[in-house]
Amino acid sequence: MIAVDDALSILSRGTEEILVEDGLRKKLAEGRPLRIKAGFDPTAPDLHLGHTVLINKLRQFQRLGHEILFLIGDFTGMIGDPTGKSATRKPLSREEVMDNARTYQEQVFSMLSPEHTRVVFNSAWMGEMQAADLIQLAARHTVARMLERDDFSKRFKTGQPIAIHEFLYPLVQGYDSVALRADVELGGTDQKFNLLVGRQLQAAYGQEPQVVITMPILEGLDGVQKMSKSLGNYIGISEPPDQMFGKLMSISDELMWRYLELLSDIPLKEIATWRRSVAEGVNPRDIKFHLGEEMVRRFHGQTAASRAKENFIARFQQGAIPENIPEIEVPGRVDGLGITNLLKEAGLAKSTSEAMRLIDQGGVRLNGQTVEDKGLRIEPGVKCMLQVGRRRFARVTLVSDA
Amino acid sequence: MIAVDDALSILSRGTEEILVEDGLRKKLAEGRPLRIKAGFDPTAPDLHLGHTVLINKLRQFQRLGHEILFLIGDFTGMIGDPTGKSATRKPLSREEVMDNARTYQEQVFSMLSPEHTRVVFNSAWMGEMQAADLIQLAARHTVARMLERDDFSKRFKTGQPIAIHEFLYPLVQGYDSVALRADVELGGTDQKFNLLVGRQLQAAYGQEPQVVITMPILEGLDGVQKMSKSLGNYIGISEPPDQMFGKLMSISDELMWRYLELLSDIPLKEIATWRRSVAEGVNPRDIKFHLGEEMVRRFHGQTAASRAKENFIARFQQGAIPENIPEIEVPGRVDGLGITNLLKEAGLAKSTSEAMRLIDQGGVRLNGQTVEDKGLRIEPGVKCMLQVGRRRFARVTLVSDA
Repeated sequence: MIAVDDALSILSRGTEEILVEDGLRKKLAEGRPLRIKAGFDPTAPDLHLGHTVLINKLRQFQRLGHEILFLIGDFTGMIGDPTGKSATRKPLSREEVMDNARTYQEQVFSMLSPEHTRVVFNSAWMGEMQAADLIQLAARHTVARMLERDDFSKRFKTGQPIAIHEFLYPLVQGYDSVALRADVELGGTDQKFNLLVGRQLQAAYGQEPQVVITMPILEGLDGVQKMSKSLGNYIGISEPPDQMFGKLMSISDELMWRYLELLSDIPLKEIATWRRSVAEGVNPRDIKFHLGEEMVRRFHGQTAASRAKENFIARFQQGAIPENIPEIEVPGRVDGLGITNLLKEAGLAKSTSEAMRLIDQGGVRLNGQTVEDKGLRIEPGVKCMLQVGRRRFARVTLVSDA
Repeated sequence: MIAVDDALSILSRGTEEILVEDGLRKKLAEGRPLRIKAGFDPTAPDLHLGHTVLINKLRQFQRLGHEILFLIGDFTGMIGDPTGKSATRKPLSREEVMDNARTYQEQVFSMLSPEHTRVVFNSAWMGEMQAADLIQLAARHTVARMLERDDFSKRFKTGQPIAIHEFLYPLVQGYDSVALRADVELGGTDQKFNLLVGRQLQAAYGQEPQVVITMPILEGLDGVQKMSKSLGNYIGISEPPDQMFGKLMSISDELMWRYLELLSDIPLKEIATWRRSVAEGVNPRDIKFHLGEEMVRRFHGQTAASRAKENFIARFQQGAIPENIPEIEVPGRVDGLGITNLLKEAGLAKSTSEAMRLIDQGGVRLNGQTVEDKGLRIEPGVKCMLQVGRRRFARVTLVSDA
């Protein structure tokens, strides 16, 4: 094992908060493999780079000799949304959960070593739990404290209903830490409240409270909104090498530094050197090459990474992507703009009917991906690269009137 | 079966609210025995007349041919108070619950016919319930609506903690109605919120919602505070005939009318006739005789009732209880007054040490009962009859400074 200070320095890279750092130091100093918990939804997984910020941190723990508890929250997934209000939260069957778990593993084991990762399902203990035990668990937390959680607080104040079982889910998540005797739990900043419930419940059950580490939410390709499939500003970890590389080359220089810190394992010192070199005139594109190569290597291997880079340079040198792409601001409404209107407003099509025809012919690309859905809507605030045919490009920002 | 209107008139006597009366009419019109639910704590039962307001209503249902579901809430009783904050809510063992249930039955079956009463324990279904089912149940109610319950609302506003499991108990009580397919549930006015949860949950589970009947909380002998053992203003249903009769004779004339309506089965028409006769000069004491006899007859039989009345008259005629007992107001503090100070302040003892001696000699009676505990405290607001020796009496009201 490496020195505690060195481990701490690796582990704190890119984190938002460590609660509490002294606790982490103490646990690391014990010299035993720690139990590192991270929870994942049991819904159909299709991981993008946003998810890998956390998984990358798990990998860092794993490389330092710790045990990863990859927790699939199937217990609540199999309950679904009993209020029936959310159509997207149908109860999952055991088969669906197992299918999804397999898909997770296929994707995650490109980053984590299968031998040192325990995939666990919380139905293993929650499925056995009696109503009486859940009541005991619920006695460990108060209504007022639960209402401090940001989303609950907002909904309560604006009179939007909160069903009582929603108060039980953070307790279930917290109890998972008790059942697993977790030493550390990782989550996004939006999970902080729930992660702290775990700390509190472990203390209530006589355990040493887990250290909570929150990771920032990664911005998508637009550099503004969080990376998300529904916003279309994402890079899936299964995307083909050329596409992944190309998308990474399209991000802003500022976002590049953030991706390097949060996604790559390139030492911070080296990144700092690059920063200085860019300040002294080096083309940021050359740094992006490092980022692109590192990420494609991670998911597709070194050969694919080198080839993706070569392909990109070849296309670039052939003038496939011009060096100076016009930046266009298009006014949009609060609810966004359809793709055909966007093409027209950006001057890439004369009319919406021409735009439709272009889409039908497969001649329109959004962030490097062929657009197939003529009804696609672009959210206000989104920045994207539009391409029509081989040679017409525009970087479009949809500006909201609101 | 009797006509629906006649049944309704009997059943609505003395009730605070029937929610909803049309529902009750409809159910009665079906002509089948209805399932009438009432829930009781599994803690050591020592029933007093306050409890019998509700039990008397059950008896009226039973006499009309309906089935009584005497529900003992042992499931929550066996959980106790998991926060450990309340020393009085220790978890009960199964043996304690069964002991208490037996005591309940001994006491209750003096009023209800054992053949037409089903004693049920909610642990029968709640003990089987999985945590997952409880979560489903909790999804049927919202936090905001639960916080509308008076006591929750007050505690929430004043920042007193509410543990989350406290939100689950009304749901458990409501689910009992689902499990029992109750047609009607009876409870005190303080139970209204919980009874309505039962209605709502039955609807959510596809059942016809129960009719909710709330009964007023009976005032104690002082006519002001609710009858309660801890306030000392009660008549236990196991008290000996003379004592029960004597206590009933001590109440105010106004309270007498209320007791007649809520506790006796004397027809309301007859009570109305008595009211008129008192207005025309009849001594209310003669009406109290009817009340005393009726109540003693209920718990000890006709012979005991007649004898209690004779004994009372004998004592009265011998001047054992003077006709004009002095009314004394004693200033007390917010936390009440000890019995020895009270005796001194009321002029029944020269000093607290004399008061102690009198108590040791068995010479002090409070509401007809010999005082044995020299540390007894009297709550502010309490009105009581103090007696020292055979001949010294005082009606004492403890006035709070607050």
